[in-house]
Amino acid sequence: MRALSEDSSQSDVCWGRGPVLDLVRHTPARCVKLVIANNVRPPFLDELVAAARAGKVVYQIVAPEAVDSLCGRGVRHQGVACRVTEAPLLELEPFLNTLPEGAALLVVLDHVEDPQNLGAIIRSAEAAGAAAVVIPKRRSAPPGGVVMKVSAGAAARLPLVSVPNITASMERLNKAGFWTVGMTPGAGDSRAESIWDSPLPPRTALVIGSEGDGLSRLVSETCDQLVHIPISGAVGSLNAASAAAVGMFEWRRVNSPR
Amino acid sequence: MRALSEDSSQSDVCWGRGPVLDLVRHTPARCVKLVIANNVRPPFLDELVAAARAGKVVYQIVAPEAVDSLCGRGVRHQGVACRVTEAPLLELEPFLNTLPEGAALLVVLDHVEDPQNLGAIIRSAEAAGAAAVVIPKRRSAPPGGVVMKVSAGAAARLPLVSVPNITASMERLNKAGFWTVGMTPGAGDSRAESIWDSPLPPRTALVIGSEGDGLSRLVSETCDQLVHIPISGAVGSLNAASAAAVGMFEWRRVNSPR
Repeated sequence: MRALSEDSSQSDVCWGRGPVLDLVRHTPARCVKLVIANNVRPPFLDELVAAARAGKVVYQIVAPEAVDSLCGRGVRHQGVACRVTEAPLLELEPFLNTLPEGAALLVVLDHVEDPQNLGAIIRSAEAAGAAAVVIPKRRSAPPGGVVMKVSAGAAARLPLVSVPNITASMERLNKAGFWTVGMTPGAGDSRAESIWDSPLPPRTALVIGSEGDGLSRLVSETCDQLVHIPISGAVGSLNAASAAAVGMFEWRRVNSPR
Repeated sequence: MRALSEDSSQSDVCWGRGPVLDLVRHTPARCVKLVIANNVRPPFLDELVAAARAGKVVYQIVAPEAVDSLCGRGVRHQGVACRVTEAPLLELEPFLNTLPEGAALLVVLDHVEDPQNLGAIIRSAEAAGAAAVVIPKRRSAPPGGVVMKVSAGAAARLPLVSVPNITASMERLNKAGFWTVGMTPGAGDSRAESIWDSPLPPRTALVIGSEGDGLSRLVSETCDQLVHIPISGAVGSLNAASAAAVGMFEWRRVNSPR
């Protein structure tokens, strides 16, 4: 993370009209400070100010350059930015204690480092109806401003569970009744069957690896099942976020198609 | 497009080790000039040089700053960049003349402007086994460097068909035996059924709209069928590239699951 002109890192600033309005509307408690450039006009201005008032979010009308300086260089903030508290990360045990039995999708990330991919996966996970996204404590990108923006605010709404060790957590998920399904790249692991060969169980933990390397060896050996998405061509491949979206909505198609 | 220090725009430069190696290996004819920073080391260096020689691609070892200047500011080029000829865009009629009858997926983009989304969609389309991606002549992002990079080289391999008018092209595709299926955002159009309600036909043209506005009215009225992906929550939504991936692989699941 690079230093900015203010006392904080870029990672707790969210920007852009849609994401900021979503934040202020749906998670006002996380909005520490909202800044609006003085060239932002109605009707968006009125909509945002009304939402800020309703959510008791402190806002300030500022020169456009102040928004630039809060967001850092090269960001298309559309005149609005909001400093947010870090996404509250949950611990696995208390999270599992609150989770009802029965059908549930968890998305487990095995060092997905790129914040674009992390944000896109969190967004799709919320839309697919996942109960939470599980991320490793040390190796993943922190869910900061880029993640928040790419996730379209989902990073502030969907439970994010942070765990010290992915394989240990998968064993714990097994005990909690989850079937752990690892997604491997197309041509990868010969143990992997097509994701369409057998229906994903109602209580599934879908394990997604990094784009380059896929799942780490220990993680893939810990999975109850390995699947791949059949793809065409000698060269083609799917990026981690697209593969995750296809996997999550395959769970949804089988288990909760409405 | 912003001007760079060289005589050309960023849009015909591709960078990054994976994408550049893919280009040199699989589409050497499109590589006009390959530059390699003098701090790039074996084994990657050997691999790239061997591929360049095999493909008769001219390469040059340069100072790292020369790669910076070719790519433009803020790009993580990893020491390699390649100037490429523009992706050759095809016309619809000659393309249809070469297309066999029977099962085929076409992906039609109704002003998807963002190069990240365009690149991601082209990459997933190749992996899903699409025959081509159809883009409007004027309104779409040109398939330049960002598109190439995000598509992981697929933009150089998959046929891209450029059409002056999307609705007219959809009518032409109808005559060529395609069923045109428009994807609408979750809570959007009441005429849309779930994408899982009836199987997508073998010869399908999947029409994808922009992230913000979905399909334009005329395009959605021209579709044979409108579908949506069921999503959870009041706030959640899918981005255009994720929705497209889910749609394309649903076609694949039904029509060509191996």
